Amino acid sequence: MTSNPTQLSPVWEQLRKQAVEARSRAYVPYSNFQVGAALLDGEGGVHYGCNVENAAYGPTNCAERTALFRAIADGHQAGSFEAIAVVGDTDGPITPCGVCRQVLVELCPPDMPVIMSNMKGDWRVSTVAELLPGAFSSNDLTKA
Amino acid sequence: MTSNPTQLSPVWEQLRKQAVEARSRAYVPYSNFQVGAALLDGEGGVHYGCNVENAAYGPTNCAERTALFRAIADGHQAGSFEAIAVVGDTDGPITPCGVCRQVLVELCPPDMPVIMSNMKGDWRVSTVAELLPGAFSSNDLTKA
Amino acid sequence: MTSNPTQLSPVWEQLRKQAVEARSRAYVPYSNFQVGAALLDGEGGVHYGCNVENAAYGPTNCAERTALFRAIADGHQAGSFEAIAVVGDTDGPITPCGVCRQVLVELCPPDMPVIMSNMKGDWRVSTVAELLPGAFSSNDLTKA
Amino acid sequence: MTSNPTQLSPVWEQLRKQAVEARSRAYVPYSNFQVGAALLDGEGGVHYGCNVENAAYGPTNCAERTALFRAIADGHQAGSFEAIAVVGDTDGPITPCGVCRQVLVELCPPDMPVIMSNMKGDWRVSTVAELLPGAFSSNDLTKA
Repeated sequence: MTSNPTQLSPVWEQLRKQAVEARSRAYVPYSNFQVGAALLDGEGGVHYGCNVENAAYGPTNCAERTALFRAIADGHQAGSFEAIAVVGDTDGPITPCGVCRQVLVELCPPDMPVIMSNMKGDWRVSTVAELLPGAFSSNDLTKA
Repeated sequence: MTSNPTQLSPVWEQLRKQAVEARSRAYVPYSNFQVGAALLDGEGGVHYGCNVENAAYGPTNCAERTALFRAIADGHQAGSFEAIAVVGDTDGPITPCGVCRQVLVELCPPDMPVIMSNMKGDWRVSTVAELLPGAFSSNDLTKA
Repeated sequence: MTSNPTQLSPVWEQLRKQAVEARSRAYVPYSNFQVGAALLDGEGGVHYGCNVENAAYGPTNCAERTALFRAIADGHQAGSFEAIAVVGDTDGPITPCGVCRQVLVELCPPDMPVIMSNMKGDWRVSTVAELLPGAFSSNDLTKA
Repeated sequence: MTSNPTQLSPVWEQLRKQAVEARSRAYVPYSNFQVGAALLDGEGGVHYGCNVENAAYGPTNCAERTALFRAIADGHQAGSFEAIAVVGDTDGPITPCGVCRQVLVELCPPDMPVIMSNMKGDWRVSTVAELLPGAFSSNDLTKA
């Protein structure tokens, strides 16, 4: 991934802490693996997300997607988001799964920062576009 | 499905209207098929949801799940919900897809009412258990 | 669910055994919960499926869907299937999750038998339509 | 993405053609966007896949995943695959969606080539690891 700042800005550090807070509400009876996310919208509002598992595994939803879907349901427009933080109890900073990266590509600007962290406070910043290089997107479908 | 009341109770009728309101925020560039949902929690709070589509189709999230996932992210417990309404522009009352039914089974009481409706105001009420008879659930996994 | 025959027909019993065989190939490092399926097409061919899990849970695929998707990829038409059997190590006969029921509704006749069983040999037969009453389907989308 | 060879090897070119062949069996009543895939296993066998859509969008399965899941169901081991080709009618070479990349990471070697192409014969080769940089994987879950 790309170069990282030596320190998180106060806004990003706060977003990281909000992701930690959201993480405590995870519904994870099957994996016991809690993940939290916090999404910053264009008006300064923050949307919390956590992972929500299912006995059938497939319908499981991740923290990042919970945050994104709820923001859309509150009337925020695709493309209007400014940053997202995600936190899990991983050795290094957690990274979003491929499903979440696909949803980030759909709903966020390509250069939007994704702050990835863990419970020890390690972090790394990447962008939506870097996380899914050459992403499949609506541009590909228009030919259909 | 089971017998229906001749009239929706005021609480259910309000929930239906809130689902109509949530529907207007649907992100549906691929199907143009807007769906809205409103979930009533045990403390009288209402959680809005809409469908959010994706160019890759698979990561698409339905209105009912958006409402359920966000309520969990706000600290509501699985099993604590009281009713959900869902509305789409269908000939008869819209019904939840199988993915949403599986998530309803995971997070809601079996006898929780599901108010299904359309834009003409037709409606039908069923329960979570009726919508997914003999559901696969966490009880099945415990043997593993 | 509906009335069951007192005995599985030889064809269904064979399909059940083929599901047991398919089950042994399940990729389940996260749940250790193996499921197998066998799908009978209109020409007497059988398509095997097992569940395939993923560290991110959401991309997990069930046995029934594996069997259905591969049969389509081999040129079989939606609506041309005759029966499916599914087997897991559950107390009673295993039942398909909601996602699989939605895919069954999409690709199979409503009255197609679904033979559900477990490793002890218990079984129950239902139909696609009974497993997802009032299913959301392509008919609902056409209004869009 | 990384450097590409100036010409596809005969094996990769054949795999590309098999993906084109598989594409014709796609079940795509909602998008009309056909995709095909062909997966080469460690013993020289080829597994065909196409996309299979669903009225509820979310249960839709992509071509790449169809090929991977069926190969597992036939007894091939995770990590034993050698290459995959995917073809769609896109302006440039089609790329896998994030869900498929997550499944590729789970079931294939990180350096496995992914041959991406379109109906005009344009192509590009990348690897599983390049397509999902810093992927979330089973290593992250073990901490849980």
